[in-house]
Amino acid sequence: MSFNVIGVGPGDSELLTMKAVRMIGEADVIIVPVKKPDTTVSTALTIAKPYIKDMTKVAYYYFPMFHGFDEDPETIEMFKAHGNRINGLIEQGKKVVFLTLGDPAIYSTYTYINEYVNEVSYVPGIPSFVNGAALAGQPLVIGGESLCVLNMTNDEAEVRKKFESHESIVVMKVSVNQMLLKQVITDGNRKATFMSNIGLKNESITTDINVLDTKMPYFTIALIR
Amino acid sequence: MSFNVIGVGPGDSELLTMKAVRMIGEADVIIVPVKKPDTTVSTALTIAKPYIKDMTKVAYYYFPMFHGFDEDPETIEMFKAHGNRINGLIEQGKKVVFLTLGDPAIYSTYTYINEYVNEVSYVPGIPSFVNGAALAGQPLVIGGESLCVLNMTNDEAEVRKKFESHESIVVMKVSVNQMLLKQVITDGNRKATFMSNIGLKNESITTDINVLDTKMPYFTIALIR
Repeated sequence: MSFNVIGVGPGDSELLTMKAVRMIGEADVIIVPVKKPDTTVSTALTIAKPYIKDMTKVAYYYFPMFHGFDEDPETIEMFKAHGNRINGLIEQGKKVVFLTLGDPAIYSTYTYINEYVNEVSYVPGIPSFVNGAALAGQPLVIGGESLCVLNMTNDEAEVRKKFESHESIVVMKVSVNQMLLKQVITDGNRKATFMSNIGLKNESITTDINVLDTKMPYFTIALIR
Repeated sequence: MSFNVIGVGPGDSELLTMKAVRMIGEADVIIVPVKKPDTTVSTALTIAKPYIKDMTKVAYYYFPMFHGFDEDPETIEMFKAHGNRINGLIEQGKKVVFLTLGDPAIYSTYTYINEYVNEVSYVPGIPSFVNGAALAGQPLVIGGESLCVLNMTNDEAEVRKKFESHESIVVMKVSVNQMLLKQVITDGNRKATFMSNIGLKNESITTDINVLDTKMPYFTIALIR
């Protein structure tokens, strides 16, 4: 009996770790988070599919993502129920895994139910920005440099401060505020690489800042130097 | 013929990706960086060992790490020679891989010879701090947070600035300036987890800030909240 939250990496099924593959193969129940209540569509599941045995049970747990969901009483009740279901499975002696895109410690959906789960271990995965750097062929940090992983949900003052104090910046959730991002890149005369849906079928990589003029996919990151 | 720089992850041989394992198995020549001219000791090699075929050639490339090595003419000549040897192998039609601890984009030794190599691809690996977060069972970033990966080779003003502007900080190369780190953690009343040699035999994890009073191992990181 055990409960492991597993990072399945950024998209390519070959970028799971050996440990993740082994644990997915040994699992009795595989939990995947879904964004709509009645769907079985899950990018994490698609990535892990080649390693899931035909007999293994897959459970779809609904994680709403509307603005303020983490303070909505009904959603919190549902998150508690998710935790209780997991605790029940563990008590029954099941091996349970929860799949999460990228890595469990970096903007993972799982975090929201963690406080309701009695016992958990984590298996790390390749974060999207680490894969992005590999594809772009550019280092994130060398020598004495520091790196900032910045979320575009931050306000302008915060974004500008981070740009001013870091040589190397990874911007996550680019689509949240593309105009501000374009402005700070231009103002600071920085070099940027934009990557959408990396590791997935409709992947795109460009250094053309004008891509920010039209709405970009949710899974877009930018590497700034 | 190909040349791939492969991240072997933080220490546990099960934390290599499927892709890394496949490419190590297919390689004609495996290059590992070593810190002394006449040694075959390499942590990256030890981690990858289970996947290396008996017949595969292993080549040890010397990367000095003394202060100012990257501006030392003799060292630069040697780095050029490393690049030329790699180019020669590729021209001979060999499949060549270069192993690097953690991930190739994050403080990798390889970076210093990259400009002398004609063609390269990268295979990402689990960075040490991503594994550290998994072991400590704590998220690096959730919601709108940003993350700073900070190197203790920075000066006091820089370190303080980064501490003030980030909720979540990963401190690399802790042993470079332990007293300063202790001071800023105490001043900011921050929570810290210290991890040494994670994934290796002599691994240790503690939240006791007094570990900073005695010299810590080179592979020590701190997760700060």
